[in-house]
Amino acid sequence: MSLGAVNDMPDEFELIRRLAATQRGVREDVVLGIGDDGAVLLPVRGAQLVAVCDTLVAGRHFPEDTDAFAVGWKALAVNLSDLAAMGAVPQWALLALTLPERDVAWVERFGTGFAALAKMSEVALVGGDTTRGPLAITVTALGAVAPDMALRRDGAQVGDRVCIAGMPGEAALGLVAVQAGRRDEPAFAHCIARLDRPEPQLALGQALVGVASACIDVSDGLVADLGHVAAASGVGLRLELDAIPHPPFELGAALGLKARAVTDLALGGGDDYLLAFTVDAARLAELRERVAALGLPLHEIGGVVPGAGVSVITREGGDYAPARAGFNHFGNDDGE
Amino acid sequence: MSLGAVNDMPDEFELIRRLAATQRGVREDVVLGIGDDGAVLLPVRGAQLVAVCDTLVAGRHFPEDTDAFAVGWKALAVNLSDLAAMGAVPQWALLALTLPERDVAWVERFGTGFAALAKMSEVALVGGDTTRGPLAITVTALGAVAPDMALRRDGAQVGDRVCIAGMPGEAALGLVAVQAGRRDEPAFAHCIARLDRPEPQLALGQALVGVASACIDVSDGLVADLGHVAAASGVGLRLELDAIPHPPFELGAALGLKARAVTDLALGGGDDYLLAFTVDAARLAELRERVAALGLPLHEIGGVVPGAGVSVITREGGDYAPARAGFNHFGNDDGE
Repeated sequence: MSLGAVNDMPDEFELIRRLAATQRGVREDVVLGIGDDGAVLLPVRGAQLVAVCDTLVAGRHFPEDTDAFAVGWKALAVNLSDLAAMGAVPQWALLALTLPERDVAWVERFGTGFAALAKMSEVALVGGDTTRGPLAITVTALGAVAPDMALRRDGAQVGDRVCIAGMPGEAALGLVAVQAGRRDEPAFAHCIARLDRPEPQLALGQALVGVASACIDVSDGLVADLGHVAAASGVGLRLELDAIPHPPFELGAALGLKARAVTDLALGGGDDYLLAFTVDAARLAELRERVAALGLPLHEIGGVVPGAGVSVITREGGDYAPARAGFNHFGNDDGE
Repeated sequence: MSLGAVNDMPDEFELIRRLAATQRGVREDVVLGIGDDGAVLLPVRGAQLVAVCDTLVAGRHFPEDTDAFAVGWKALAVNLSDLAAMGAVPQWALLALTLPERDVAWVERFGTGFAALAKMSEVALVGGDTTRGPLAITVTALGAVAPDMALRRDGAQVGDRVCIAGMPGEAALGLVAVQAGRRDEPAFAHCIARLDRPEPQLALGQALVGVASACIDVSDGLVADLGHVAAASGVGLRLELDAIPHPPFELGAALGLKARAVTDLALGGGDDYLLAFTVDAARLAELRERVAALGLPLHEIGGVVPGAGVSVITREGGDYAPARAGFNHFGNDDGE
């Protein structure tokens, strides 16, 4: 009995209920959750609110045949990684799910993946929408940060050090393995897990508040994303090639990748969901302590210099130009 | 240089910048807007936060060839109407835009429509995402409501009156006119405007806080949406057919619709974006005053009764069964 209806019902309610079923009781700051026109939430007294929003489109951001659990996990993860980059404590998420057909088994598995990360991150799913159409997922995540303490891209100062606390390129190597049909080989399990179930560095982001001068979530590749920090801060970043961790060359070799290709995955592979950040050199000891307390490795990978853009310098002092990745079946390289 | 990249760049930034360009300076509670990993926002001190999220898919929720201005307007409107139904004051929106191609002119026109309603409603666009894929738009809107004063679906009490403050069925009649290729006839201009540029009843929703016992946004049809109020409240709703306003029969006749078909558009046409609400009969005078102060007509269309579901009663006391709408090219009628 609808004409040009905007909501697809009652399917919507049934699906959202299934999704919500595993997510009850997560947070006491949810006054009214799924089932009304909107969610009613209790912001942290005195805190500022951080809001992020990211879409995953099937066939573009993940292969069409990706396990629904991984899609659900990742749809939330990419958003929580953005909250992490702001130093925020995550609280709530809204989910807009567009599905080509009423595949209840798929939705349940998707919901299980979403819920697994939500529970681990203490995030409550409080609202959303389901519609019929080509498979795509948009998540909005909300969190809290102390007044004027959010990490930003625009605070890097000349003389600061550039750091990461994890290994870039693993997810990209995992994608190469998947695309080569070698998903089941134990050697690639760790990298494929980084691809399918990235763990947003939420604790790290919160630990960086008050210490890091700038921070960004690395999702499109280390060099590309650090370029946004450079641009926003009005500085140049000079990365030291030898200081940048990368997946083991032997792992790449097993997939037919030369050492240089593995390095390039670390520099530009994407899908890392690591934080990259800058810190005043005088505060490195404090930073090291905070990061060590989280059990994470701290890699100083370069410094902030006058100028613009990101350069990668070899041991000999030459400029290193990372190759464009050649395996991008799900994105494209034409600057989009 | 991305592999399996999740964000589509730099296109994303360029498009979002274009969208944001017309939206500056709207609100002082935006600490950090578009351009970082997340937006930083200042919640209203002591208020609760209301969050809503709705998706529009091309070819399903609007005809593919709909003017981009109308799409932009409507994508925000459907969400603001949900905030209205909660009695919330809107503050911020995030926009996830999936586009089949880089059509800058389309995006600018879309952004102009979005911005027109955003400005009128004092909403700031604070974040979002653009991706390549089949045309779809997800908006998340955030607003504020006084503690525990949000309007809900579950408060209708037996003896309450059921009201609306506007005319249902106009947008549906507008869609019939558009589908009949008669978009340019002045007689249909008002109904087509209701379809293309629905004005969320934000002031009404806020005026209903503390007076209405339950409220819902009518988007899928008056009877269908009131069914949610009945279910959530554990009551029945008895609507009086003669009391329900409908578009002029002559307007329907000009499109070949019988009187009954016009009535059915009012009962089930969808896309109305009106609020339907219940109120204690003892507070009708107060309600009437508040609604009149907004220059809106108040229609008492029925009452809350023991039982379940929504019934429509004719003058003679018989049950009226609205026909299923026959013009729904963009949704479907199989219960989805």
